[in-house]
Amino acid sequence: VRCEVVAIGTELLLGQIVDTNSSWIGEHLALAGIDSHFQVKVGDNFDRMDACIRHALARSDAVICCGGLGPTQDDITREVIAHIMGVEMIRDEAIVDRIRQMFESRGRVMTDNNRRQADVPVGAQLIAQMPGTAPGLVCPVGDKVIYAVPGVPYEMRTMMEGTILADLQRRSGQTAAIRSRVLRTWGHSESGLAEILADRITELDAIGNPTLAFQASGIEGLKVRITAKSEDAAKAEKILAEEEQRIRGLLDDVIFGIDDETMESVVIDRLKDRGLTLAVAEAVTGGILSTRLTEIDPAMSVFRGARIAHHTDDSGDAAELAKAAAAQVRRDFGTDVGIAAVHPAKSEGHGPGTVFSSVALADQTYETTMALPGDLRRLRAFTVISLMNFLRQTLDGAPHRKRRSF
Amino acid sequence: VRCEVVAIGTELLLGQIVDTNSSWIGEHLALAGIDSHFQVKVGDNFDRMDACIRHALARSDAVICCGGLGPTQDDITREVIAHIMGVEMIRDEAIVDRIRQMFESRGRVMTDNNRRQADVPVGAQLIAQMPGTAPGLVCPVGDKVIYAVPGVPYEMRTMMEGTILADLQRRSGQTAAIRSRVLRTWGHSESGLAEILADRITELDAIGNPTLAFQASGIEGLKVRITAKSEDAAKAEKILAEEEQRIRGLLDDVIFGIDDETMESVVIDRLKDRGLTLAVAEAVTGGILSTRLTEIDPAMSVFRGARIAHHTDDSGDAAELAKAAAAQVRRDFGTDVGIAAVHPAKSEGHGPGTVFSSVALADQTYETTMALPGDLRRLRAFTVISLMNFLRQTLDGAPHRKRRSF
Repeated sequence: VRCEVVAIGTELLLGQIVDTNSSWIGEHLALAGIDSHFQVKVGDNFDRMDACIRHALARSDAVICCGGLGPTQDDITREVIAHIMGVEMIRDEAIVDRIRQMFESRGRVMTDNNRRQADVPVGAQLIAQMPGTAPGLVCPVGDKVIYAVPGVPYEMRTMMEGTILADLQRRSGQTAAIRSRVLRTWGHSESGLAEILADRITELDAIGNPTLAFQASGIEGLKVRITAKSEDAAKAEKILAEEEQRIRGLLDDVIFGIDDETMESVVIDRLKDRGLTLAVAEAVTGGILSTRLTEIDPAMSVFRGARIAHHTDDSGDAAELAKAAAAQVRRDFGTDVGIAAVHPAKSEGHGPGTVFSSVALADQTYETTMALPGDLRRLRAFTVISLMNFLRQTLDGAPHRKRRSF
Repeated sequence: VRCEVVAIGTELLLGQIVDTNSSWIGEHLALAGIDSHFQVKVGDNFDRMDACIRHALARSDAVICCGGLGPTQDDITREVIAHIMGVEMIRDEAIVDRIRQMFESRGRVMTDNNRRQADVPVGAQLIAQMPGTAPGLVCPVGDKVIYAVPGVPYEMRTMMEGTILADLQRRSGQTAAIRSRVLRTWGHSESGLAEILADRITELDAIGNPTLAFQASGIEGLKVRITAKSEDAAKAEKILAEEEQRIRGLLDDVIFGIDDETMESVVIDRLKDRGLTLAVAEAVTGGILSTRLTEIDPAMSVFRGARIAHHTDDSGDAAELAKAAAAQVRRDFGTDVGIAAVHPAKSEGHGPGTVFSSVALADQTYETTMALPGDLRRLRAFTVISLMNFLRQTLDGAPHRKRRSF
């Protein structure tokens, strides 16, 4: 089964919104083992939408139409699909009631326009998931199919994950369950990881299941994606778990998390597990680290606060400055842990991207020095993630990086 | 002239990269007055690229192919276009030399693969701008045209702005110069702005030039775009400038900046102009404001520092807390200005999105209270921009918002 995506909306063509929905759908089709060769964007225009969807349906087996299911007169995806199916539309009163209830639960009154959202081409099925006021549709056209999902990312994803991906797999006669897991790593280059995993990759190339793939995520490290196929989900999960253990044995603490975990979510979780609180001294990173930590800990129950200041004391020793800043911010905020990163002044003779990081934990200080690449923007981003990673490793007692200073 | 965009690269279909290039091109085609009805993504596959580009050329007058001009065997845009033109490719030795020089200037050696980048379909013209190692191409096909630009955003934009947009305007017989300017506003809804500008919009609808358009930019306010057409650029700029003055007369200090200016760039500029330094007390915004300010002022010469802490003193009066925090952070960092925003504890009986903002300037404190919408994420974003806007208005002495407290 080949499936393509038609993203609908004049605002996409005008560049007022970047079409991230198609990227998400493309990624998840690939993960589900469904081929996808084209993605198209088209404006809210009947004839052009009609031509686009017909063309897509001619060269593929399934088309996912994303957008144009709203309540306004511009939203004509329902009409276009009914035209392609050669059928009328019928208003589904149960859906009208459901939409009305959604409005009432928010203390609002449904407008007449919203009734249009309950119009369904005859022969189309409703997608069971309906997180918003726009129902999704499964519309058979001969032995092919058009799916219609809203352009609201959350609603689209819910319907993709709840109905469409499974329906496509069923249509493709794909009885195997495919599961994948991402191991998030930081600190190694792609060639470095490939070298460590070389033997295992060779073995897996021969076996064919599971598979390993590297995905760059920029400054946030490299992802190692394990994908396993089996006759049912439980068996695929078992293959995943076994492979994860094997890879963890090879990569050790280079792996900082899995799937949707981020460096900051891992760090906050580690601290919370141990009942520790954190304060941060930021200099060149100017608030980026604090922002990321409060995203994860909005109540600031673990991350208690930060002081942001440019270190103007060019005469000082940067390593000592970092140590002092970490200890000072820990005292100021009365936390268990204080962290700081400091860049030496040019006069100190270090490379331009040198960063001294320090973790003050109880009455001990742990330090590391790194040479980081790039311009100021990259230097900042690297400083933030490397400091968090150093805190993570320090909390885990990673012996090969820890250097006790007093 | 209708022009469409074909974005090339399997990584786009797999969702590993979000296709922001097409959005940028779509926006700039619209600004140049060129119609664009479709955008397509296709993988690095000869037959599918060939089919896609031919289909695009059949329904439009011009096609911009973006990507696939790199040095690897996957990069086959040149070959596909030559096939569609029905011509051979010829290696341009002047370009080979130019690529070699680029490598040498970076202390690197050109690989043989890079020579492929100098292959040009017979009859195609090189785009004059060449910021990277991939030349761009203008490829006539009958009375239609295919442009080829690299997928590297900077290189693509340079060629679009330097050659392609003007070439498209020439082909469309559009001799008029089109110029536009964005007035950035904050504090009014779209319907509020429309009401204030209603008479002028009616007048302009009758005149037809310049035109006004509203563009939402989410929490960052609304943009009012003025677009002017005239026989030459100078006259179009004059129309723009006159219309800007007229709109400024109507909207006054709701306009905080133009074009690429942001609220933080405007605030930092205002402070710098007056020789003032700034310190910030962040609470619920957790570092977002500091991050935005250091983006603009990386040396922290104006924005001197911040203290980020959750206000746990639920018993205090939030307005007093904000006033005290602004004054305190000003003293701590020894700056001219201190700013703070505080959200009251639930027990104080304010609405959930109430924010008390305070600006301490010299020995005076200025305060404002706003009710902000939404969940925590939106509340944070609104708090950041509303606090900056309040600082801007306070510095400008906007009398209708200022409230002297002592």
